[in-house]
Amino acid sequence: MKTTNNTPLPEPTLRRLPWYLAYVRMLDKQDVEYVSSTRIAKELSVDASQIAKDLSFLDIKGKTRIGYEVHSLATTLADFLGFTQQHSAVVIGAGSLGQALISDVGLSQYGLNIVAGFDTDDNLVGKVIDGVNIYHVDTLEKWQHENHADIAILAVPVEYAQQVADRVVSSGINAMWNFTPVRIKTPQEIAIANTSIYAHLAIIYNRMNVARSVID
Amino acid sequence: MKTTNNTPLPEPTLRRLPWYLAYVRMLDKQDVEYVSSTRIAKELSVDASQIAKDLSFLDIKGKTRIGYEVHSLATTLADFLGFTQQHSAVVIGAGSLGQALISDVGLSQYGLNIVAGFDTDDNLVGKVIDGVNIYHVDTLEKWQHENHADIAILAVPVEYAQQVADRVVSSGINAMWNFTPVRIKTPQEIAIANTSIYAHLAIIYNRMNVARSVID
Repeated sequence: MKTTNNTPLPEPTLRRLPWYLAYVRMLDKQDVEYVSSTRIAKELSVDASQIAKDLSFLDIKGKTRIGYEVHSLATTLADFLGFTQQHSAVVIGAGSLGQALISDVGLSQYGLNIVAGFDTDDNLVGKVIDGVNIYHVDTLEKWQHENHADIAILAVPVEYAQQVADRVVSSGINAMWNFTPVRIKTPQEIAIANTSIYAHLAIIYNRMNVARSVID
Repeated sequence: MKTTNNTPLPEPTLRRLPWYLAYVRMLDKQDVEYVSSTRIAKELSVDASQIAKDLSFLDIKGKTRIGYEVHSLATTLADFLGFTQQHSAVVIGAGSLGQALISDVGLSQYGLNIVAGFDTDDNLVGKVIDGVNIYHVDTLEKWQHENHADIAILAVPVEYAQQVADRVVSSGINAMWNFTPVRIKTPQEIAIANTSIYAHLAIIYNRMNVARSVID
């Protein structure tokens, strides 16, 4: 990512850029040629000045009164977000969620290529799921030494999350995508993103109850 | 959820409560009897006063110097978050991600029961995936009229997200879990949570590059 000064992008910006990408990709499919930050703003309910600021991190300029060229904005955003590069990943924990991630072809379209799975369950170790071999977790260090994955995806039960994370770090993998609801402790140089999908359910359930209490 | 005044819980609190639950469930499995907010704070890197404040929304009291009773804190949290009630859901878009969600048994442990899938693809409509029937999207209104699902899970391609969301609303489903990266527009009474898993990849990719630029 070509930020000018190697500082990390603000996380709120990083969270919004994929919204812009989704929207301009859609416009691109509809053969729309130009889009203004005002139009993006209206469509996504984000402040237009915020959008201009977010997009200023990218190496792209809008034209006065016309706006951004849709196709090149989509391409630039996808590049900038790292979605057009391939990153190799291992899934640790090949249970229900881990297998779902292995089987999700969508990830490869966002630059993530799952190359191996790891588990401790004798019923899983040695299996091949959608072309991905499942190995025993005890072989992670050796495997990583030979194969150099970029990212470890954590999909293990809560009680093993921290110890598996420690193992990932000592194997030399420097980035983790944590699907457990556990707050993992890692050294500062490890890149980490937390996606606790089950936790999001609590947000829906809560909002449902509130909505109901309004309606009842 | 038993908040005293029926106002929605602050979303940051809702996002932290599942961390506490994951942690105290782990303690519970290890037969730990009591836990203080100080210990939770240390473990999860959250301010102890913040934890006490978050937990004050629940109908549970800690004991001075001893803290919270672990087992009942776990139970109360799970109840409060809605994880012990069953909510029925339909998945709209039975492609790779939709199928992965249908197959993920973890969701049912968090109170989500997927009862049907919908798609437009002739190769999918009529199929049964892990016991879940896939119907044509055109039958959604009729199906909902007879079956009354609580939640619609959106796992459709970006370009259909808004129109499918509109259809969900008009079918009478009042809660949506949006897995697309699109910012869906819905009437205010619709409960919605956004889980754009691919967008989280951008965060890891960005952090990886920054970490590398530090190391190189």
